[in-house]
Order: sequence, then structure tokens, then C-alpha cells
Amino acid sequence: MTNEISFFQNPDGTREEILEATFYALRQHGYADLTISKIGDEFGKSQSLIYHHYDDKDELLVDLLDYMLEQVENQVPLPNQSPEEYIEIIVDEIFGTSSNSDVEFSQAVIELRAQAAHDDDYNRLFRRSDDFIRKQIARVIQSGVDAGAFDVEDPSQTAALFHTVLVGIQAERITSDEETIDDVRTEFRRYVEKCLLSE
Amino acid sequence: MTNEISFFQNPDGTREEILEATFYALRQHGYADLTISKIGDEFGKSQSLIYHHYDDKDELLVDLLDYMLEQVENQVPLPNQSPEEYIEIIVDEIFGTSSNSDVEFSQAVIELRAQAAHDDDYNRLFRRSDDFIRKQIARVIQSGVDAGAFDVEDPSQTAALFHTVLVGIQAERITSDEETIDDVRTEFRRYVEKCLLSE
Repeated sequence: MTNEISFFQNPDGTREEILEATFYALRQHGYADLTISKIGDEFGKSQSLIYHHYDDKDELLVDLLDYMLEQVENQVPLPNQSPEEYIEIIVDEIFGTSSNSDVEFSQAVIELRAQAAHDDDYNRLFRRSDDFIRKQIARVIQSGVDAGAFDVEDPSQTAALFHTVLVGIQAERITSDEETIDDVRTEFRRYVEKCLLSE
Repeated sequence: MTNEISFFQNPDGTREEILEATFYALRQHGYADLTISKIGDEFGKSQSLIYHHYDDKDELLVDLLDYMLEQVENQVPLPNQSPEEYIEIIVDEIFGTSSNSDVEFSQAVIELRAQAAHDDDYNRLFRRSDDFIRKQIARVIQSGVDAGAFDVEDPSQTAALFHTVLVGIQAERITSDEETIDDVRTEFRRYVEKCLLSE
């Protein structure tokens, strides 16, 4: 799931307001320490309104992921980008920025991903998100192959490694310093240059 | 942290027996559902003996990670391998086998890694583990450069990407099917061939 979209610019309706509060509370407290009460503090309206819509924190978080994923899925692709420029944008998204809130969000996403080991709802959502991201990246790579810009035999295979690096970086942000992340970025750019771009 | 070593072949002493029980209980139940009581079931001796040594499950899990990491750190490197063969072994370790217990262990490790966002003890151990693994891989790559087998400018940079893929695969094992992991493996091998091996 990408970090780059603004999800809650104009929340309309109670559901979106609750989800917005959940989003910010999750960033601030992380999954383990998140409670409905802390979401209520962020929400600013009656906590009982949250319980009217959701039974527990996991039901709420699953709905948040679902909502965010839907917004990402309905995003219109960037127009007027060459495949090389588009790949550059994807690499930038994978490595994100180092702003504090993004790091906190990455941490929270990895905590939620870990829940997918034991919870079918989380599992289903992360599978859907992973598939969507892989297919989007594969589509960009395929368009580069069609345009003669990329030399890749199997775009979905290449997209699979891109996605693994995305997930790896999200998990590593918990413990790695920016210097190490920079090393990974530089090496991944070398891979893109030598293994994707046509000579 | 690698999946491939047998940690508890000859547990000696109560600490190792408790850690062994924790290891198997963690594999079976995962982090979130793990309790001292479930570890006690695996332990087979009095549960109060566990409480005599450890205050809570996190103290126990941190000691388990510490113990496993120490064993990995003291491992003697494989003798008589060429750098190319050694890299092949490292790639195999990154992608592991698909045996069920390995998948369960991967899931548990990602759950523990997520704790590092909020817990200094977990954070310290994962940083130590990550640094150790990156340095080991960088050493193998450096020896390949010295032998003229690899053409890499900055071995620690290359090792950083290897490590990110290792972590990414551990996290992806929760939701990805074996076919997708195979795609990542094939693409990563292409990277090793085109970006590491000398022409």
C-alpha cells in the first residue's frame, strides 16, 4: 500500500471521519497500543458513535485498509509519462521519503501485515493490495517493453521483485537508518539500469 | 535471522529447555497468541519454573532471539566454497524452503520485528541481527571481487539490497503463494547474474 496519497482531504460522513481518526491514531500509537479510546480522542465526537459502527479495533482497521485500498485502486494513472519516467516514480515511491509520519505509517502497516498470519480479513486485504501493486508495476514494465525502452522477458516476474523490495523496505524502516536505506536505493537503481533498461 | 540452523539439538540446562519450548510454541501459535501457559505445555515441566526465570513473554522472546543470534554469530563459515557457490547458498537461504514450519517461523519473526517499532529490546536485537547478516553477505561479495569473480563497486551496498529482499520475502510469506515467491527468486537470480558476476 503506497504512502503517497492524501486519503482524507475532504472526509464526508461519519464513516470517513472515524476512519480518518483511526488513520492518525494508528500513525501515532502503532497497532499494538491502539485502542478505541485513543481513536475516540482523535475523533473528537462521542466514542459511542464509533462503537455504533464497529465492534472492535480490528474491524475498524480492516475497514480502514479496505477504504484506502479502494482509493488507491480507483486512482487514475499518471498521464504523459514515459515508461522510464514512470519506473523512476515507482522507485521513488518504494523508498518513500524519510519524513517521520511516513516512517510511523510504514511501521503500522507492517504490524497490520503481521496480523495477516492469523486473521483472514487482514490476509484477504493484503493479498488484494499486493496483487494490485504487482499488476500495476507489471503494466508499466510491459508498456516499456512494448515501447522498446525495457528489455525484460517476464514483466510480472520483474514486478514481483519490485514488490518484495517495497515490503522489505517497509519492514526495514523499523530498524534501519537512512544511510542503509540509501544503500539499498542506490543498488536497486543499479538493478533497474542493468536489468530493465534496453542497451 | 536465518531459518536454516538447528538451534536445539542438545539443549543443556533449564534456560535452553525453556527457550526450546518457546521456539516451538512460537512457531505453532505465533506472537500474538503466545502465552506463558502455551510455552508451559511445550516445556513439560512446571510452569512456575518459567516464571522463576522470566517476568513475561516478551522478556522470554527477547532472550530467545538473543540466544539464536549468538548461535548464528558463532557459526563457522562454510569452508571450501567459491564466492559464486557461496552466493548461490545465500540466495537459497533468502528464499528458504516452502516447508510449513519455515513459513510459520517466518511469520513469527515478522511479528517480532513489528514489535521493534515500540520496544527497545526487540529493536536492539533486530539491528544487531540485520547488521550481522549484511556484513556476512558483504564479506562474501568482497571475496568474490578480490577473486575477480564479481564485478561490484560497493559490496556493502549490494549486501544491503540482499538483506532487504530477505526481509521482504519473510514478510511476503504471510500472504504470497509459492508461485509468486518463485517469480521473485527467478528475477533475483537474474539480478545476481547481470549485476554481480563478472562478464
